Amino acid sequence: MSPTAAPLPPASSASATVSTDAGSLLYWDDFHPGDRQAYGPMKVTREAIIDFASQWDPQPFHLDDAAAEASLFGRLAASGWHTAAMSMRMVCDALLLRAASLGSPGLEQLRWHQPVYVGDVLSGHFVVLDRRRSASRPGVGLMKSRWETVQQDGALVLTLESWAMFRCRPAA
Amino acid sequence: MSPTAAPLPPASSASATVSTDAGSLLYWDDFHPGDRQAYGPMKVTREAIIDFASQWDPQPFHLDDAAAEASLFGRLAASGWHTAAMSMRMVCDALLLRAASLGSPGLEQLRWHQPVYVGDVLSGHFVVLDRRRSASRPGVGLMKSRWETVQQDGALVLTLESWAMFRCRPAA
Repeated sequence: MSPTAAPLPPASSASATVSTDAGSLLYWDDFHPGDRQAYGPMKVTREAIIDFASQWDPQPFHLDDAAAEASLFGRLAASGWHTAAMSMRMVCDALLLRAASLGSPGLEQLRWHQPVYVGDVLSGHFVVLDRRRSASRPGVGLMKSRWETVQQDGALVLTLESWAMFRCRPAA
Repeated sequence: MSPTAAPLPPASSASATVSTDAGSLLYWDDFHPGDRQAYGPMKVTREAIIDFASQWDPQPFHLDDAAAEASLFGRLAASGWHTAAMSMRMVCDALLLRAASLGSPGLEQLRWHQPVYVGDVLSGHFVVLDRRRSASRPGVGLMKSRWETVQQDGALVLTLESWAMFRCRPAA
């Protein structure tokens, strides 16, 4: 994979190299433990916080300034599910939409480290932790990743670890 | 809590009773391991699947029939984050909006057991697993819950386990 194709750079210069050509689809075979992919940025607006919360998490501290000031958040804060959704969108744009992604069976853990507020700018890193071939589905592999989403000061706002499925590279 | 106030019934008739009055706010003190709360139903439309995926998870199998047919899903399927968001909305409506909820530090695990398709009708149960007072925040307690979201045939589509914070009942 060339740098012009939004590379999945190795975790360090001495670590794994990635084997695909520029512009080609990423298969399970192309991910190796230690590979990293930056994602973002995405700016968090007041309108987006209220729009998401109105649909999916209408707790008062996600909708109303006075309620937020009286809460542990102190001011209007995004739903944690919104922070997760923003992270997913950034991971899609940076990686999944150019990979042979097949979905995910779930998350091993997810942490909301601190609130996300109006005006925050989120970004992050996707890190490959582990991989194995599917025991039940020929041609499919599983990859475990860790996502680390930070705000503009570098402070963690969300981490998760997840297994996801990808197609293996077809025989030539 | 009386049955007229959308009760949090005990896990069995021999299990915990819940101590609040009808219509009053639920505090940390009111939740006991084994307590259960039904949530839902919510019908999953094609428009909702595409709208959520367009914003947060624009992988082709969540947006396009032909791409979905060629994927492991077989037909248009909701983003797992959409299933989580729908579960959150149902839990809000059934429980959190009448409780002294203060947010959550995260999930211990989340599983997407099977896809959610157009026309599915989701519902579920929230079950109290554990609780403890916050060591660092006076007047705040933590409660661990398990959410089980099923579709119309009773098959599990999502489970998660999470800790969440609630205010303790103020001194009289």
